[in-house]
Amino acid sequence: MKAIFCDGVSARLRTDLPEPTPAPGEVLLKVLRAGICDTDLQLARGYMGFRGILGHEFLALDDQGRRVTAEINQACRACPTCAAGQFGHCPHRVVLGIWRHDGAMAPWIAVDPRTVHRVPDAIDDRRAIFIEPLAAAFRILEQTRVDSHDRVAVLGDGKLGLLCAWVLRSTGARVTLVGKHAAKLALAGPEIESRFKEEVESQVQTAGGSDRARFDLVVDATGSASGLPLALKLVRPLGRIVLKTTLAAETSLAMAGIVIDEVTVIGSRCGPFPRAIEALARGEIDPVGLLGPEFPLERGEEAFAAAARPGAGKVVLRIS
Amino acid sequence: MKAIFCDGVSARLRTDLPEPTPAPGEVLLKVLRAGICDTDLQLARGYMGFRGILGHEFLALDDQGRRVTAEINQACRACPTCAAGQFGHCPHRVVLGIWRHDGAMAPWIAVDPRTVHRVPDAIDDRRAIFIEPLAAAFRILEQTRVDSHDRVAVLGDGKLGLLCAWVLRSTGARVTLVGKHAAKLALAGPEIESRFKEEVESQVQTAGGSDRARFDLVVDATGSASGLPLALKLVRPLGRIVLKTTLAAETSLAMAGIVIDEVTVIGSRCGPFPRAIEALARGEIDPVGLLGPEFPLERGEEAFAAAARPGAGKVVLRIS
Ligand SMILES: [Zn+2]
Ligand SMILES: [Zn+2]
Ligand SMILES: [Zn+2]
Ligand SMILES: [Zn+2]
Repeated sequence: MKAIFCDGVSARLRTDLPEPTPAPGEVLLKVLRAGICDTDLQLARGYMGFRGILGHEFLALDDQGRRVTAEINQACRACPTCAAGQFGHCPHRVVLGIWRHDGAMAPWIAVDPRTVHRVPDAIDDRRAIFIEPLAAAFRILEQTRVDSHDRVAVLGDGKLGLLCAWVLRSTGARVTLVGKHAAKLALAGPEIESRFKEEVESQVQTAGGSDRARFDLVVDATGSASGLPLALKLVRPLGRIVLKTTLAAETSLAMAGIVIDEVTVIGSRCGPFPRAIEALARGEIDPVGLLGPEFPLERGEEAFAAAARPGAGKVVLRIS
Repeated sequence: MKAIFCDGVSARLRTDLPEPTPAPGEVLLKVLRAGICDTDLQLARGYMGFRGILGHEFLALDDQGRRVTAEINQACRACPTCAAGQFGHCPHRVVLGIWRHDGAMAPWIAVDPRTVHRVPDAIDDRRAIFIEPLAAAFRILEQTRVDSHDRVAVLGDGKLGLLCAWVLRSTGARVTLVGKHAAKLALAGPEIESRFKEEVESQVQTAGGSDRARFDLVVDATGSASGLPLALKLVRPLGRIVLKTTLAAETSLAMAGIVIDEVTVIGSRCGPFPRAIEALARGEIDPVGLLGPEFPLERGEEAFAAAARPGAGKVVLRIS
């Protein structure tokens, strides 16, 4: 079959791959479409040592012809971590299209049926691609209490930054999206305050000793080494930083501020699919403005090039 | 009067200083003794830009002749942060012997009477010096829940590390103290498991995929740039790290582990004096084994040299 295969140097279209054989307990899903995200671009450069079929944001049909998607973490369901319900942290887990398991940029994908979620009709094919990244944004609300009195900053005007901003705004909190691109900041909509990085920095600096200009909660969704240092400048004493940025490289950082201001830094990764599906089905959050061009699977290499362009929307592969 | 004065290059004994004039609302205390801590050694090297009389761990007499000590953070009591009761984070605060206020290595010190605490007779003069650092150790229990099921590691076998280990052990948790010096590790006592750094590292490494060898909570009290990277190796997924180490320099760090394992990192500084006084008065925690030599104020420069030696106990200045 055809698939976008990661060989550790680039993402290439291959046409010689066998259809997947489900492992014991797995089921086959017929993939309709798959999104390309920054993690895919990193994987394709060999950053995380993955070799296999890419793709972890997808819409598919199950053997009854129902529209479904699946969680990316496929856990062993037998270890103490799994017994505690922390499947996303199972030390024996494989991760669809990321770690030791083929992904969804192919006509078929094998998954654990316990990770499969129905996609209601109210979510169209285009929006369904956002279930996985939106779940990651909702993870923040599972990790830290956010209420309407909180002043929240989200750093990064990429797709994850916008999803995080919308999720946080849904709590009633006052949300500022901090970015570098006017066009992307404009996507946030009227309920989010959009600011250029330099504006917010100087606002905090001129406030000097006062903490009024600083934020109770800062989310780093920049995907860049500059995110955490900026977050430390913007957060108030006793405030919280949620880290969404995973960088392969080491970063240099003045840690003293974390201690002196008694800041809490919370690492945050994958989130609850049911909550994301609910939010999309009800129209609480509409990510359609984040979409970029679509390509058929056969033009997958072109699609990856398009996704790598600065400011690209969510590029989607149509598979069947 | 005589005092140990920090000129940003070294800590020197000066004999030409005027007695302090209390600011409006301040009272004068007659200092009996003052401890030298790592922060003093750093300040003396000019790391934090302080110029003035050093000393923030002390025992004194008030104007009624009662034994007292005082909290180091002297807040404005007028700003929103103070209104929220967060005096330690008041943006207008001064800090005794550390920031914009003279400290206790002198016969007299001026302090805000609202920061003064009586020292009960049950705490002798030698143990009273530990109220301030012990309060900092108790701060951990205000910031994160620790219970008897938790597996806790404290990194650093210095004085703060030992105080943290004892405080955490008082919750019933299983505590491992991780250090480099057999003599210091031995001070921890039979209720604490003492381990060399290399032992713990290889224990976690050989456990491989299993998280059983890792810790629910890791406290970095190393005072060294190597503390946080080691903490990240030892903490389990979804675990917590409490950072006590303040470093002037930037440190290079792989942050991805925080995100992938969804670790929470909590900066931790000053703590509750009443809790520390209670623990010392009841004998719940006895720091007397941490004591080093005593020097009269006149031999203060010698005392600083002694405090700077590797493995030094708590060096104390006798003042009056
Ligand atoms: Zn992704
Ligand atoms: Zn498992
Ligand atoms: Zn100190
Ligand atoms: Zn204040």
